[in-house]
Amino acid sequence: MDFRLTDEQLAFAQAAREFAEGELAPNAARWDAEAIFPREAFQRAGELGFCAMYAPESVGGLGLPRLDATLVFEEMAAFDPSTAAFLTIHNMAVWMLGTWGTERVCREWGEALATGQKLASYCLTEPGAGSDAGSLQTRAECRGAGYVLNGSKAFISGGGDTDLLIVMARTGEAGPRGVSAFAVPADTPGITYGRKEEKMGWNSQSTRPITFENVEVPEENRLGEEGQGFVFAMKGLDGGRINIATCSVGAAQGAYDAARTYMQDRKQFSQPLTAFQALQFKLADMLTHIVASRQMVRLAASMLDTGHPQASVYCAMAKRLATDLGFQVCLDAQQLHGGYGYLKDYPLERLVRDTRVHQILEGTNEIMRVIIARQIIDKGVDIR
Amino acid sequence: MDFRLTDEQLAFAQAAREFAEGELAPNAARWDAEAIFPREAFQRAGELGFCAMYAPESVGGLGLPRLDATLVFEEMAAFDPSTAAFLTIHNMAVWMLGTWGTERVCREWGEALATGQKLASYCLTEPGAGSDAGSLQTRAECRGAGYVLNGSKAFISGGGDTDLLIVMARTGEAGPRGVSAFAVPADTPGITYGRKEEKMGWNSQSTRPITFENVEVPEENRLGEEGQGFVFAMKGLDGGRINIATCSVGAAQGAYDAARTYMQDRKQFSQPLTAFQALQFKLADMLTHIVASRQMVRLAASMLDTGHPQASVYCAMAKRLATDLGFQVCLDAQQLHGGYGYLKDYPLERLVRDTRVHQILEGTNEIMRVIIARQIIDKGVDIR
Amino acid sequence: MDFRLTDEQLAFAQAAREFAEGELAPNAARWDAEAIFPREAFQRAGELGFCAMYAPESVGGLGLPRLDATLVFEEMAAFDPSTAAFLTIHNMAVWMLGTWGTERVCREWGEALATGQKLASYCLTEPGAGSDAGSLQTRAECRGAGYVLNGSKAFISGGGDTDLLIVMARTGEAGPRGVSAFAVPADTPGITYGRKEEKMGWNSQSTRPITFENVEVPEENRLGEEGQGFVFAMKGLDGGRINIATCSVGAAQGAYDAARTYMQDRKQFSQPLTAFQALQFKLADMLTHIVASRQMVRLAASMLDTGHPQASVYCAMAKRLATDLGFQVCLDAQQLHGGYGYLKDYPLERLVRDTRVHQILEGTNEIMRVIIARQIIDKGVDIR
Amino acid sequence: MDFRLTDEQLAFAQAAREFAEGELAPNAARWDAEAIFPREAFQRAGELGFCAMYAPESVGGLGLPRLDATLVFEEMAAFDPSTAAFLTIHNMAVWMLGTWGTERVCREWGEALATGQKLASYCLTEPGAGSDAGSLQTRAECRGAGYVLNGSKAFISGGGDTDLLIVMARTGEAGPRGVSAFAVPADTPGITYGRKEEKMGWNSQSTRPITFENVEVPEENRLGEEGQGFVFAMKGLDGGRINIATCSVGAAQGAYDAARTYMQDRKQFSQPLTAFQALQFKLADMLTHIVASRQMVRLAASMLDTGHPQASVYCAMAKRLATDLGFQVCLDAQQLHGGYGYLKDYPLERLVRDTRVHQILEGTNEIMRVIIARQIIDKGVDIR
Repeated sequence: MDFRLTDEQLAFAQAAREFAEGELAPNAARWDAEAIFPREAFQRAGELGFCAMYAPESVGGLGLPRLDATLVFEEMAAFDPSTAAFLTIHNMAVWMLGTWGTERVCREWGEALATGQKLASYCLTEPGAGSDAGSLQTRAECRGAGYVLNGSKAFISGGGDTDLLIVMARTGEAGPRGVSAFAVPADTPGITYGRKEEKMGWNSQSTRPITFENVEVPEENRLGEEGQGFVFAMKGLDGGRINIATCSVGAAQGAYDAARTYMQDRKQFSQPLTAFQALQFKLADMLTHIVASRQMVRLAASMLDTGHPQASVYCAMAKRLATDLGFQVCLDAQQLHGGYGYLKDYPLERLVRDTRVHQILEGTNEIMRVIIARQIIDKGVDIR
Repeated sequence: MDFRLTDEQLAFAQAAREFAEGELAPNAARWDAEAIFPREAFQRAGELGFCAMYAPESVGGLGLPRLDATLVFEEMAAFDPSTAAFLTIHNMAVWMLGTWGTERVCREWGEALATGQKLASYCLTEPGAGSDAGSLQTRAECRGAGYVLNGSKAFISGGGDTDLLIVMARTGEAGPRGVSAFAVPADTPGITYGRKEEKMGWNSQSTRPITFENVEVPEENRLGEEGQGFVFAMKGLDGGRINIATCSVGAAQGAYDAARTYMQDRKQFSQPLTAFQALQFKLADMLTHIVASRQMVRLAASMLDTGHPQASVYCAMAKRLATDLGFQVCLDAQQLHGGYGYLKDYPLERLVRDTRVHQILEGTNEIMRVIIARQIIDKGVDIR
Repeated sequence: MDFRLTDEQLAFAQAAREFAEGELAPNAARWDAEAIFPREAFQRAGELGFCAMYAPESVGGLGLPRLDATLVFEEMAAFDPSTAAFLTIHNMAVWMLGTWGTERVCREWGEALATGQKLASYCLTEPGAGSDAGSLQTRAECRGAGYVLNGSKAFISGGGDTDLLIVMARTGEAGPRGVSAFAVPADTPGITYGRKEEKMGWNSQSTRPITFENVEVPEENRLGEEGQGFVFAMKGLDGGRINIATCSVGAAQGAYDAARTYMQDRKQFSQPLTAFQALQFKLADMLTHIVASRQMVRLAASMLDTGHPQASVYCAMAKRLATDLGFQVCLDAQQLHGGYGYLKDYPLERLVRDTRVHQILEGTNEIMRVIIARQIIDKGVDIR
Repeated sequence: MDFRLTDEQLAFAQAAREFAEGELAPNAARWDAEAIFPREAFQRAGELGFCAMYAPESVGGLGLPRLDATLVFEEMAAFDPSTAAFLTIHNMAVWMLGTWGTERVCREWGEALATGQKLASYCLTEPGAGSDAGSLQTRAECRGAGYVLNGSKAFISGGGDTDLLIVMARTGEAGPRGVSAFAVPADTPGITYGRKEEKMGWNSQSTRPITFENVEVPEENRLGEEGQGFVFAMKGLDGGRINIATCSVGAAQGAYDAARTYMQDRKQFSQPLTAFQALQFKLADMLTHIVASRQMVRLAASMLDTGHPQASVYCAMAKRLATDLGFQVCLDAQQLHGGYGYLKDYPLERLVRDTRVHQILEGTNEIMRVIIARQIIDKGVDIR
């Protein structure tokens, strides 16, 4: 057991820190206020290798462990959880393509995605389906040398602004076994993008519903075999949960750092806020919860990396804990700023709005508890 | 001891309910999104008597108990906490004017304010002063038959959109005893309104800093005697805390009602959300906390109404409890809506944003604890 | 709406305070340590009218509202929640007897019970049945001029030390409608008392299982009509929940009072504990939660008193809130005592152990949530 | 970064598990009820190497990392936190002796302590001093070839039942720099043991105050140099905090395991408790918090092992988090047992009582926050 990061890992995190301070920090408030999807920032992230960190090298990825990727996402989320979170989605899509895509599709899309020249969205959720992914309705009918897609997707991050869609669609029977995965160019005829959702936060990510109407997809654009889509989706969710949890850890760290600085500067009743014990204790609990969350996320990431058979339940635990605690830390940091915490001149209210959705997506935290409890009751959770 | 509302009170609440459903509910999302200060709505509220509920009849007020006013504010806040909260501020300003203003000022402004034709802001907070109200810096120098005001105020609700300002300024020594209160027409020469603050919520209230530069105010516009301003401010805060607490109770009830309805309609895994026990329990705790908060607010309001010597500490307890629990209920209701709770198509995310500030203003909830603890330690709190 | 107690109520509470200070406070630790059931204390309570406060006058009761009884129970629980709680059970049993018992049974037992010369237990719970009261198995077969009881009861407070048992037994069909209530002298042949339970707390109350083997009960000892027992039990539970909630409020107040005094006396780092802001805030939150709990309990009691159709759900809310918050206050008060809070020389650890069971009995707090949620979902809870 | 235990570590934990199941589980309830200090059990623990796990080999210790010792303590605490916790204290005392004791003292006491034939207590806390260890009053005056001790100690675990006392006493100036450490045979003339404390839990550990009256101690029994005692004490506290945190993790795991089993067996409303979603969620949160606590403890232990310069603040965070969460898990497990959780027939109420003190000792959790906050504010906490 060794909790230390290697020098390489530290250097990688440092590079992400510098990217975040240089590219994200100065722009995050504006991207939020004006709902700008920052394509250029993703391109520069791609130049540093951040667009395909754990995707296989065959597709231009770095082939790094998930754990290493969390170091990068965390640094970015300290300044801009929304943009960092989109980058995690893109990374997941590239990983899925690189892992199960045909050679030709990988060749066609790999480099552009890995360098951030092109961006990918992930299309699993459907209107009304929420957490019940196995029941998805979008159909991919086999016709000739390919498939024809019909159906609707909802809450698609980057939808309308990205270049490739990884789409889960039903090729067979009802239930999880009938689902397959496809890489679909975003401008394929028959794809319509709905109204951009107006959201509480995550505004640097456009979110749109997508409709597929007789969209033709060549067979070689299918990922893996027919019927494997749900398995891919589940694997994707494990990683997605770690990623979103990481973004909460990073945002919480950013909020805590801001609160610590503010408390050192701001005076009330002729004393800096750091002189007030109740506020000190708040800061102490915030840090404790950040550290605990970070450890949980790294444990789960490590279990995914080493193929632990119960990695999924640990991912669910990490997602539940880190997104709940991270949001609370952001609220606390906002509170410590008093009235200024409520203004858009400070990053706190944005961090609160952005991290709020982490408790909801990639499976709500209620669904996390369902997953954890099921494992507990059925077979028990291995604690060693 | 009698916990029942009278028929008159129930009718008054019902009138507020109808007003809220008719005037606020259809517009609240738009006023938030476009940051509209709804003057017309306040006029219509004035027609129903809601603009001067506990102000004395001499100024056109209804002279009702605080408790009765909470019934009205609560109904409005169920649909629009931001607009309801501004109405509480206006009510406080009118009450202050009517209670301590000279006959002439009351005659000049009373009717227009009481009917909502004109609106008033309350100017206590200064930049950087936060919770330390006794140290305010704005000066009112006695000169000839009046005063000349110089200084700055911050976070003024309605500032720039209202007609009359109730201003706390220093006429004498340092500390609380040197403060006096003034009614200042908002268009008096020398008053400058700063940039409209961009906030997390409370967007139907414009918030601006205000600068006073050699602003001349006649002596008859002083409320009460010189040096009484801080006493008025403290009394105002007691009522202000009840009002803001009430707005949290109302918003929480609105959020809970929305969540209950949503859970009855929305299906997951082929069952309505109401079928899931963990979600049922959440709903049960939400309601329990709403009821507890409401009782605390009514207890404190009643103590103010009957002049209980320890009413202030009960107001602080009510504000602390109701704004914390109310915000949490809004978060829970949002969570129960899943991804839809994050969209502006539903009122939940707005209720969350609006109620967040209730934990911060009228004295942060940390200041509430300071107030409560001081009373506990110094003399003890009378619990009978 | 009026939150003030009358002078009579204040005097009644004062009498209870004096009783508690004189009779309970000096003995509570010993009764706990030695598991003594303090019959003499109950007799003295009886002399003051505390043994039949809301029982009808026909049975020697004071016929007071529930609300008045909570004032008394609260004062007692501040020093000894266990003894106070048994007194609430006895009061409930006398009320049940007086309300539905035949004239002859009331005549035979009323005075002795109302004066505390004799004591009563309440026998509803059965081994393994827990919260599912409607499925109880104890049978009362009609035979000749009476009934023959067979079956087992569990967790009977006072069992083996009391004189009369109010027993719920099945006279008819399965389910709630087949249950009837009986007043059974505790020394009737065929009644066997099991081993005294060893518990975490509530040690001044003996708790034993009871077995009924061909126990003959005359028909006139039946309370009300056949099949009404479950209705009585449910009404009893409403009151029982208020009572247990009251005991938590009282215990919390006692713990808070002790912590406040301790903090004023105890020094650390050369300052009294009251000088430390984080501890001040803790004290402030403790008091706030006590006040909120007390209000909830009084609201629910008042609704029972005035026959509000939704009183049951308010009793459930009051029980849930007051027992959870009360336990937490006791824990906090213990924590504020540092190491001394863990010693039996101080009352804190006993208050913690005693109030712990309030979250469990009279329906666990999980069952409270089931009750609240059912009402919310089925018909909605009337909030006016 | 590697979160996996080695096969050796797993085997070591397994040995501890078997010891705990064989020696502690069958006796823990009795040791608690009868306040038995189980000397024989400690001897058998000694046979397995558990009495001097991280003490140096020079004193017969295993010289293992702290992290390895937590594996053992955790398994024991799952069945008996009180006995496990005493074992941690003994281990600390032996480590202190072995690390700083003179060769002669190590030779005299090492083997007996390392094998559990003899046991050691640790004497730091003084009456009234609580968390302010630097101000201790017990004096060790240098006289001739040794010292004479005078003063009092409080809350000494094992006091009166152990063979050797590690005593902190003042040899010089006021403040931390005037403190030295001594190994004092428990039967040295002049040592008096006070009344055994009656406690809420931790009953298998006798706790007594100790008075030193002209107790002669040879110079060679001093550990390290004069004036180093406080440094040793602080190092001891770091390890002590990890140990007590570990005992909370173990107890929580034991409570969770019991609750899981109970829920699978116990039926309500014709279903096993595991069928109720709200209870499932509770179980899920319990496990999540156990895992998070365990990770924090292991992280802090690892930082101690590798000499991280900020290990102390991580120990404080681990202690705060794990003892708070661990206690809450025990409460939750008790609640899931309903009425049975309140009975001494089940281990839950004992686990609650035992873990309660973990939030108080080795520095209360409030002192942990002071430590954490001081580091945050002064220099910042290194999060990499």
